[in-house]
Parts: sequence; C-alpha cells; structure tokens
Amino acid sequence: MTLSIEALDARLAERAKASPDQSYTAKLIAKGTAKCAQKLGEEAVETVIAAMSGDRGELVKESADLVYHLLVLLRSEGVDLSEVSEELDRRTAQSGLAEKAARTRD
Amino acid sequence: MTLSIEALDARLAERAKASPDQSYTAKLIAKGTAKCAQKLGEEAVETVIAAMSGDRGELVKESADLVYHLLVLLRSEGVDLSEVSEELDRRTAQSGLAEKAARTRD
Amino acid sequence: MTLSIEALDARLAERAKASPDQSYTAKLIAKGTAKCAQKLGEEAVETVIAAMSGDRGELVKESADLVYHLLVLLRSEGVDLSEVSEELDRRTAQSGLAEKAARTRD
Amino acid sequence: MTLSIEALDARLAERAKASPDQSYTAKLIAKGTAKCAQKLGEEAVETVIAAMSGDRGELVKESADLVYHLLVLLRSEGVDLSEVSEELDRRTAQSGLAEKAARTRD
Repeated sequence: MTLSIEALDARLAERAKASPDQSYTAKLIAKGTAKCAQKLGEEAVETVIAAMSGDRGELVKESADLVYHLLVLLRSEGVDLSEVSEELDRRTAQSGLAEKAARTRD
Repeated sequence: MTLSIEALDARLAERAKASPDQSYTAKLIAKGTAKCAQKLGEEAVETVIAAMSGDRGELVKESADLVYHLLVLLRSEGVDLSEVSEELDRRTAQSGLAEKAARTRD
Repeated sequence: MTLSIEALDARLAERAKASPDQSYTAKLIAKGTAKCAQKLGEEAVETVIAAMSGDRGELVKESADLVYHLLVLLRSEGVDLSEVSEELDRRTAQSGLAEKAARTRD
Repeated sequence: MTLSIEALDARLAERAKASPDQSYTAKLIAKGTAKCAQKLGEEAVETVIAAMSGDRGELVKESADLVYHLLVLLRSEGVDLSEVSEELDRRTAQSGLAEKAARTRD
C-alpha cells in the first residue's frame, strides 16, 4: 500500500526526535535553517535537470528527495504540513471558482 | 478538514483536463516541460528565501506554491504522485533500518 | 569592441547612483537583499534550463541576465567585483598547482 | 594585481585542454551539460543563502564558485564569454537609453 505524504511526514517527525548521530533527519535539523534550505534548493535544481533530461526514473527519485527536504525544512521551522495543504487548498479552490466563472461566461 | 496532498493532486488532475484558456494548471502543462520546470525552480528559490528571512507566513505560502508546481511538473511528465511517495517510503524505511542498526551497535 | 565584465560593472555602478524611478538597477537595489537574491536565483534556474534545452542563443541571453543580477546583488551587499575575481584567482591558481603536482607524479 | 574575469576565463581555457584526471575543469566538462548545469544551479543556491545570511565573506566565496561554474558551463556548450558580455552590453545600453528618455520626459 502506498503511504500518503502525511504518513511519511509523521515518520519523519519520529526520526526528528532521535539524536543527530542516530538520524540523518535529526542531523539536518540540528544544522539549522541555512543547511535545510540549501538541501531543498539543490534538490530542486536536480529535479529541474531530471525533468529536462526526460529521465522519468530520475525525476521520480529527485522529486522524492525534494519532498523529503521540504518536509525537513518545514519541520526545522516549526511549520506543520497541514498549514501548507490548507494554503494549497485555498489557492486551488479560488482558482476553481475563477475557472468556473470563465466557463460560465462562454 | 485538511485535504491531503493526494486529494489536492486529484483536484489538479481534474483541472488538467480543462482547456488551457479555462485552467491555469492546463495552461502550464500545455506550455511544456521547460516552463513547468522553470516555475518549480523559481518557487524553490522563493521558498529558500522565505525560510532564510524567518518569515513563517511567507514560508507556508511559498511551500504551497512549490508543492503545486511539483504536482504540475509530475503531471506534465506523466509521473503519478504515488511513484514519488513509494520512492520516499523506500528511502526513509531504509534510513530507518540504518538508524536502528546504529542504535543497536551502541 | 567587447566590453569587459569589469567595464559593465562600472556602468552599473553609475546606474545605481540614479533614483529608483529612473534606473532599474537602482530600483532593484532599493528593494533590498531578498529581491536581488531572488532575481539571481531565478536567472540561474533559467540558465540551467537553457543549457539543458541545448538552445545556444537562450543560454547567451540567460547567462547575461545571470551576470547582471550577480553584479546587482554584489553591489547591493557592498561587495566589489574585484574581491570575487581575487577569490577566483586564488582558487584556480591553487588548483593549477594541484594539477601540476598530479602531472609531475606521473 | 587583480585579474579580470576574461583573464580567469583564459586560464580555464588552458585547464580545459588537460585530461580529465589532471584538471577538475576538464573533468567537469567531460561529464557533460547536465553535471555542469547542476553545479551552476547549486552554487546559485549557495550564493542566495550567503546573501540572505548577511555573511559577506561567504558571499565572496560563493560568488567566485558561481562565476567559475558559469565559465565552465559556457565552455562546455561552446559559448564564448564575449558573447555574454556583448549581450549584457546591449541590454544595459538599451536600459541606459530608456533611463535617459525617462529623465528627459521630466
């Protein structure tokens, strides 16, 4: 069964409680914002390159790394994934109404 | 209730079926890989800057944009979000075993 | 005649003295570090995409934008281009010695 | 004496002629576009973070790395630095005229 992003985030929350020498996640968070942000930025660059290369397998791997490092950065800043989901819900719901309006106009 | 990332991805799948002049999501996908990858990269830069600025509200917004543009890029390349989740599951499960091994060694 | 990067930087130094409503360069600097850094990051993403697309003309244009936004960022932070050149000189000179050593070893 | 960016680029041109096991520059170019573009993107992320951290020394170092990797990427794609300088000259000259026009209007 496929775990949801939320279930994977809950797994990382467990990891983050370990000591930095026992968990890579805890180690990254202990290094602070700049390191977590740097990793996120680097993985985004690799995701862009994988997409441009047309390498589907690489895109899956780099996207997984990007999501991982986003979850770590959010955790390091004390932001809950649900806050991001709610923002995304709001934005795409608005855009839904805008689309509906556009359709009704025709 | 907070929607899961998967539920939001399903919403985007609906949008992607609309014509490009009715949906921003469909429009982006119609523009092709380079445009979708560019938007992902730009949002990652903004997420990095929001984190470094220590602006929590901006971090939530930019992270939502980053997740949105990742979902759009994956869709444009025909990659299912579950493939990314499964890869992330595998990676963090492995790391869990590695952490367990490290703990047992002490 | 081709102007050197240093001559172009001197031109930007003149622009930066203008008021923000008369010069795009002065306007960017007035917006502060985060905006200048964001533009640099975005142009880097576009340079990466132009290179991966194999579009030579786009690579020239995006590289010009990247150099421009690097010069603006350095100016906004009070860093002189010569400091960057000296650092690059030091690094590539060291690497020269390392290469020489490698060659002598054979 | 401070070397110009052009003089440093000429140094890299020499390095690029060496075999990949003798020169880091030659090695990077041998790895191809995707690797050179990735390094450029990563250094841009680090430059953004150094600027946002307000760490002047780090900004000098990361900017030197960014310029180095831009020169390597251009070389790997067969683009001469003078093409980028000429484009930057054209763009900032135009902007000069635009600024002049704006000033005359007042």
